[in-house]
Amino acid sequence: MANDGPAPGYTRWALRIEYDGTGTVGWQRQNNGVSVQERLEDAASRLVADAPVMTATAGRTDAGVHAAAMVVQLDLPETAARDARQIRDGLSFHLKPHRIAVLDAAAARPGWHARFSAVSRSYRYTILNRPTRPVLDLDHVWHVRHELDAEAMHAAARFLIGRHDFSSFRASSCQASGPVRTLDRLDVSRSGVYIHIDATARSFLHHQVRNLAGSLQMVGCGRWPVERMKSVLEARDRRKAGPTAPPEGLCLVGVGYPEDPFS
Amino acid sequence: MANDGPAPGYTRWALRIEYDGTGTVGWQRQNNGVSVQERLEDAASRLVADAPVMTATAGRTDAGVHAAAMVVQLDLPETAARDARQIRDGLSFHLKPHRIAVLDAAAARPGWHARFSAVSRSYRYTILNRPTRPVLDLDHVWHVRHELDAEAMHAAARFLIGRHDFSSFRASSCQASGPVRTLDRLDVSRSGVYIHIDATARSFLHHQVRNLAGSLQMVGCGRWPVERMKSVLEARDRRKAGPTAPPEGLCLVGVGYPEDPFS
Repeated sequence: MANDGPAPGYTRWALRIEYDGTGTVGWQRQNNGVSVQERLEDAASRLVADAPVMTATAGRTDAGVHAAAMVVQLDLPETAARDARQIRDGLSFHLKPHRIAVLDAAAARPGWHARFSAVSRSYRYTILNRPTRPVLDLDHVWHVRHELDAEAMHAAARFLIGRHDFSSFRASSCQASGPVRTLDRLDVSRSGVYIHIDATARSFLHHQVRNLAGSLQMVGCGRWPVERMKSVLEARDRRKAGPTAPPEGLCLVGVGYPEDPFS
Repeated sequence: MANDGPAPGYTRWALRIEYDGTGTVGWQRQNNGVSVQERLEDAASRLVADAPVMTATAGRTDAGVHAAAMVVQLDLPETAARDARQIRDGLSFHLKPHRIAVLDAAAARPGWHARFSAVSRSYRYTILNRPTRPVLDLDHVWHVRHELDAEAMHAAARFLIGRHDFSSFRASSCQASGPVRTLDRLDVSRSGVYIHIDATARSFLHHQVRNLAGSLQMVGCGRWPVERMKSVLEARDRRKAGPTAPPEGLCLVGVGYPEDPFS
């Protein structure tokens, strides 16, 4: 992490981007499909006469997961002088017709890194809780037919707040060095036919929010009593927890830094 | 309107349906593309062994306009006995993969007609008001880049409430017998980057909500003073009003009846 500044001859920009993860392999470049990163780097390269560019993100999202406000760093050649508005609008233009666009752009402060400087990530997981399948919300919600008790889900979420070993909610593919995380927020609320699960932490394990949503749903539908969440957490065993909720209900809604990169 | 009951041998069902108007020609059957009506009647016909079925709606929507809660009547052969849940789920099944589904179904009360019994229609028009084009809301908002003053728009809307000659906001294609309507609600509010225009009336002229939205936007961006809305209304001249706002921002959100058909 020592040499995380821009390469010589490059300047770093902070970007806040919105994307629809439907049909992508997620944020990160992969061989098996189109990633948000590849599309963003292609657009940025066109902005600077096809010069090479580099990006890094505050957090990777999986295939089908969305972002309303992901923060990304973009290192551009210094020779391609641009102002923040040109970067924002030029990138959004070159990103057409893909469902990715730049909401904000700003010159990064010295030493700022999209990932290593971030102190919090916030996600919203949305369940559409009604008998009928999603139409206007297609690809943006998890459809759960049986009625869920949001208050019970919220009560169960109380056991998960704070610093814990989250092995029960960690994907086997997780590459993090350890299973301990501090969950600062996990609120469950109902708004009409929608159930919102709002989660904030400094960082999350792979699939953690989706695994939490899957277990909260077990409480919501009455198959688990509220207190079972405590024993599931303490088991530190992925097999004791509920299923992984599908990706389309998940949206990254914010990344926190000690200083707002865009103010 | 005298013989608006179901045909002999048919029973009438009330349906509440949700649909995404993107890529359709709107509610009504037409020769130039696929309509919501055609898809619903095709699905209903499959539900009753390909017998003929008939539908009518509380209101027609244009190409690209959405509905969160449209009310439709469906006349099915009496021989095809079904209960309300079977109708709801069976229709939604046969409507796949189209972006149309049935939220509620109920046997209609005697004399009930989806259109003629309705006493109010409610629409929401949504503007995404930010520099960057829509991504997560693509095809469901009108994108307006310049900042809008929602309070000024709401103040201008006060001139439009009540019974008026709405010729200034009436499409030339409007087939209504007269231009007088009573607007019961026209509220403009901001929620973050969204501007919501909520309109309710017993009935609307063709394009009336979109034409109202287009003129309110002229106030919101500062090109018109608030008071100009009064003179535009009084001119009874479509050419004096603002542009027709695009269809994708419009959604029918409710239809009112003296008795709730679904309770």
